[in-house]
Amino acid sequence: MASLHPFDPITCAEIQLAVRILESAFPGIKLRYKRIDLQEPSKHEVIPYIEAERRGEKCPRKPARLLMALFHRLDNGSFFKALLNADTKSLVSAKELPKDVQGPVDVDEMIEIEQLYPWIYGTDNPQESRRLFQCYMYIVATDHPQNNQYSLPCKFSPVFDGISRKLVRMDFLPGAADTQSTQTQPWKPVPAVQYAHDLLDEPLRTDLKPYVVQQPEGASFNVIGNAVSWQKWRFRVGFNSREGLVLHNVTYDGRSTFYRLSVSEMTVPYGDPRAPYHRKQAFDVGDVGFGITANQLILGCDCLGHIKYFDGYRSDAQGAPIQLKNVICMHEQDNGLQHKHTNYRSGAATVVRNRQLVIQMICTVANYEYIFAFILDQAANIELEVRATGILSTVPFDNENGQTVPWGTNVGPGVMAPFHQHMFSLRIDPALDGFKNTVYYEDSVPMPQDESNPYLVGYTTEQNVIRSSGSASTSVDRNRVFKIRNDHIMNPITYHPIAYKLQTMPSQMLLARPNSFGTKRAQFATRPIWVTKYQDNELYAAGEFTNQSKRSDGVEVWAARNDAVEDEDVVLWHTFGLTHNPRIEDFPVMPMERVSVMLKPDGFFTKNPALDVPPSTQSFNKSTLHPEPACCAGPQDRGQVKL
Amino acid sequence: MASLHPFDPITCAEIQLAVRILESAFPGIKLRYKRIDLQEPSKHEVIPYIEAERRGEKCPRKPARLLMALFHRLDNGSFFKALLNADTKSLVSAKELPKDVQGPVDVDEMIEIEQLYPWIYGTDNPQESRRLFQCYMYIVATDHPQNNQYSLPCKFSPVFDGISRKLVRMDFLPGAADTQSTQTQPWKPVPAVQYAHDLLDEPLRTDLKPYVVQQPEGASFNVIGNAVSWQKWRFRVGFNSREGLVLHNVTYDGRSTFYRLSVSEMTVPYGDPRAPYHRKQAFDVGDVGFGITANQLILGCDCLGHIKYFDGYRSDAQGAPIQLKNVICMHEQDNGLQHKHTNYRSGAATVVRNRQLVIQMICTVANYEYIFAFILDQAANIELEVRATGILSTVPFDNENGQTVPWGTNVGPGVMAPFHQHMFSLRIDPALDGFKNTVYYEDSVPMPQDESNPYLVGYTTEQNVIRSSGSASTSVDRNRVFKIRNDHIMNPITYHPIAYKLQTMPSQMLLARPNSFGTKRAQFATRPIWVTKYQDNELYAAGEFTNQSKRSDGVEVWAARNDAVEDEDVVLWHTFGLTHNPRIEDFPVMPMERVSVMLKPDGFFTKNPALDVPPSTQSFNKSTLHPEPACCAGPQDRGQVKL
Repeated sequence: MASLHPFDPITCAEIQLAVRILESAFPGIKLRYKRIDLQEPSKHEVIPYIEAERRGEKCPRKPARLLMALFHRLDNGSFFKALLNADTKSLVSAKELPKDVQGPVDVDEMIEIEQLYPWIYGTDNPQESRRLFQCYMYIVATDHPQNNQYSLPCKFSPVFDGISRKLVRMDFLPGAADTQSTQTQPWKPVPAVQYAHDLLDEPLRTDLKPYVVQQPEGASFNVIGNAVSWQKWRFRVGFNSREGLVLHNVTYDGRSTFYRLSVSEMTVPYGDPRAPYHRKQAFDVGDVGFGITANQLILGCDCLGHIKYFDGYRSDAQGAPIQLKNVICMHEQDNGLQHKHTNYRSGAATVVRNRQLVIQMICTVANYEYIFAFILDQAANIELEVRATGILSTVPFDNENGQTVPWGTNVGPGVMAPFHQHMFSLRIDPALDGFKNTVYYEDSVPMPQDESNPYLVGYTTEQNVIRSSGSASTSVDRNRVFKIRNDHIMNPITYHPIAYKLQTMPSQMLLARPNSFGTKRAQFATRPIWVTKYQDNELYAAGEFTNQSKRSDGVEVWAARNDAVEDEDVVLWHTFGLTHNPRIEDFPVMPMERVSVMLKPDGFFTKNPALDVPPSTQSFNKSTLHPEPACCAGPQDRGQVKL
Repeated sequence: MASLHPFDPITCAEIQLAVRILESAFPGIKLRYKRIDLQEPSKHEVIPYIEAERRGEKCPRKPARLLMALFHRLDNGSFFKALLNADTKSLVSAKELPKDVQGPVDVDEMIEIEQLYPWIYGTDNPQESRRLFQCYMYIVATDHPQNNQYSLPCKFSPVFDGISRKLVRMDFLPGAADTQSTQTQPWKPVPAVQYAHDLLDEPLRTDLKPYVVQQPEGASFNVIGNAVSWQKWRFRVGFNSREGLVLHNVTYDGRSTFYRLSVSEMTVPYGDPRAPYHRKQAFDVGDVGFGITANQLILGCDCLGHIKYFDGYRSDAQGAPIQLKNVICMHEQDNGLQHKHTNYRSGAATVVRNRQLVIQMICTVANYEYIFAFILDQAANIELEVRATGILSTVPFDNENGQTVPWGTNVGPGVMAPFHQHMFSLRIDPALDGFKNTVYYEDSVPMPQDESNPYLVGYTTEQNVIRSSGSASTSVDRNRVFKIRNDHIMNPITYHPIAYKLQTMPSQMLLARPNSFGTKRAQFATRPIWVTKYQDNELYAAGEFTNQSKRSDGVEVWAARNDAVEDEDVVLWHTFGLTHNPRIEDFPVMPMERVSVMLKPDGFFTKNPALDVPPSTQSFNKSTLHPEPACCAGPQDRGQVKL
């Protein structure tokens, strides 16, 4: 496997190798695998290699190719994390984890409990160390593969032990705004609110005309393995079971920009105060994983145009490699105009369209869908776009007589969708012209009322360099902008260090009280900005093991080291999200809610980097003109319009 | 002209008629026209007509077709506003305006002073009543129609009287960070930073492949005159010299949603404190007009796909009608996925794409371009997207030795781009199932630490109804959402009144000090939300006459009436914008900066209104697959990648 790049995702053969190594290390003991994946190389070991690549020089020896595995010994139930060396085909280490650490849910486990609609258990008891699943029960007709069970929730909810598969407890769910549960009653049939086209009462629209994207000469990108080049950008598409899509070693026009970009975590805490809903808080990355929940995409459904798909591999519980076909798609899109100027004297216009490269995955985490796309453009911008769609997580509610709750929305007969938040953490590992960078923020502030500002209209900026690891706030009122710069490289025209800025999405942070488990487990979601000093293995904002965690062990811990981060190998984390108080229009399937953050060059270049994009012309774009009705010579001749 | 709809834009013949009426009213006196335009009908007079249209009933008599004209008498310079009745071909009124009221810039005036690069004069003297132009001077080579003069600013700036065309004063511009101007020196030639493709030093990119949008069956919209129907939406495209694009009488599936939507004003105040720059504050709607600056669009340059164009008319200074071809374009676009859900048990997926209808204008206001688009979708959302592009307004600056200013960015040799703000006002005149609506805001707040919230994770919402006209703040920390509802119509499932929400763009408000002219003239830009009771003729956020205004006379005045606005004919105004501290990458032409606000149904329907959009299929979409290299059987066989 010497031909693999250090950032290439795990292969089929590597999963098989890992299992062989572990079987030799634990002879005669049956193992159950939760994860077998790539262990990314140490940054300091891989930098010489990728720098030689970037410069087109002879590459030095690659760092060791390492794999990681999480598994249970089935003889005694103990839970291990192992590191393996794929080059030497040997075990590096195998460490037993503490008893209260729960690994993520794996696909086989999900299938085994699947009849019961398992939900992440959450936490409300610091003494609990069993692996638990709370099963929310729904009624689903079996006459169609897309019946919407979320429309018909039941009022009982068994809790199972995930290891023994035994019933631990039956929870009865409240039916009213108070927290009392009532005895379960025979189900009064109500029709499900359906989303599938086959199951709708109303006819489909018939007036939508085809819209076809044609790329007769193919795409503008080139792909070799997982390495992509497009419009001065170069990067590697990474994939792992946990984060799914990762971008590695992103360069523009031969210059380093970002070492690694990923969605490091997300959490979805619910605001319904009634037991057992208080435990509803999923960590979709740490508890489950975007890689294993990524949809296997189908040509013509999820993207238009000319599509490149990337596959991945995961292991099943027995260690067999499972191919994940088409889990990442990549395509170009046209996003309107990028720049235009009309010289109003001469009438001459320069028009350049905004061609983008979209690298996308779509994850189904039980009821919800998340669409994550890194979008690169020709002006050296990188956007992370997140679309939330899918189905609301619903609860039973006796709403037939006009009852409402102040923490949710009635979305159908007997069904209510509680308020919740979706909190994302974007991890940005910058490498702007080198691996030592500085994070600072810049506020726009009025100038003082003194002789420097005689007309009182002046304003200027205040810079605050983040010198020690920690956190920071966003501020709309001060138009706070976070920037990453390289103090060693000055822009020859602005006379400021070269930089990128992070266009944040200022968002409401966690609404759970600070002393709740909800907040203790998701400290990353209490502050919009975190800055840490890079260390290997510090990838996940809420820590490595989130399932039934009692507290998080992630970015807030690393930030608290008070490391010097000015002109250092620094990592910037941005928490953003949605406070999602459901609309009834979000049911039975939710029109996407879009959020976006961007990385934009700010003094990284000496002028607009998209100037050399060819002009937008009809001969290239081949648009068509809507025909004018023959009867109409001018507006004054138009007949009365009744539409 | 009986066939015109009350909302139809002014016609060629109507401009001619207006001039005939005014010539008769002022016999023998030469008039100079600044504006001849439609005077929109009184709302209470037009509602019975549009309601009958909506219901498909016999329409009552139309309200009188009124026109308005702004003009100077050339015998004594006095400035008039006239109202005319186009049905009776008669003058309704002609009122002389106060001496210090300045009308907007007209196209002929702009051309007459054009050699001098006029800039809106602004205000710093409450006694000033002359019509003034500040001319910023640039050096421009004449060998190409798109030489970038903004790269080569001069250090002198004449002030002209706009009526007499006489030089009032020569201002000398500062060359350093202090406010001193220095004597002008012979120009030291430096190369201009060019944006036009012909004038670039570097070659154009050659690796961008064609991307063609084909609509083989044409568009999904229908157009009769200015009435548009598309995917359950119906509306009328309005156009006037001042606001340009207006949407009238927007209905969805036969239900009223919005009576009128428009960008009512924008202002661009600059933060450079040095004279004469302290007066740089353009009101691009009121001082100039988006209608008269709207680009006449060209097929295949500004939009992809199947395009419908709308024309408009303006008058010139002599009262001759000038056709404005293709000033509004309309087309469909695909915006990725609208909703998706994969049933993870059955693997069956429902996928619906997000087809949108874009109604767009592109305005060139001297150096800057603004792209305004109302974007409607199939889930009953209306977005206003604004893209800022074009060229920064620049000033001379002696930066060759590393000098910088704290209120601007060096963007080339001898040229600096000062900090500034772009503040937009979206005027929303709602009509949710009727013309009496209520505006309120809703905050998401943690529940108290008491027995109602034993696990401390509960959160709920607080509603504040805006009962009296006034203003309000946005709040990210409280996830404040502004909503418009009809108190008389309950949603049968949520048990709340039907509503739309405004997804605001929380933005930094004006940075100029409150007692500056900058702020006095643009009170609308001091608060993100204003609520007023509807009155005819209250359309423009900074008031009717903004040019050289001493203070604004707009939304803040109407809001201060303290009108009862609950369950009334209410208007909601949203101020949002950009604090634009230029990046050097914004020069010599700016990659678009995008801002967006949305109106979304929130309990207006009983489920997702896009459920009946047909599924996304390959047979409809005709995507193509990127070919895999033949050599690669799997990832483990890939050769080493060097890109």
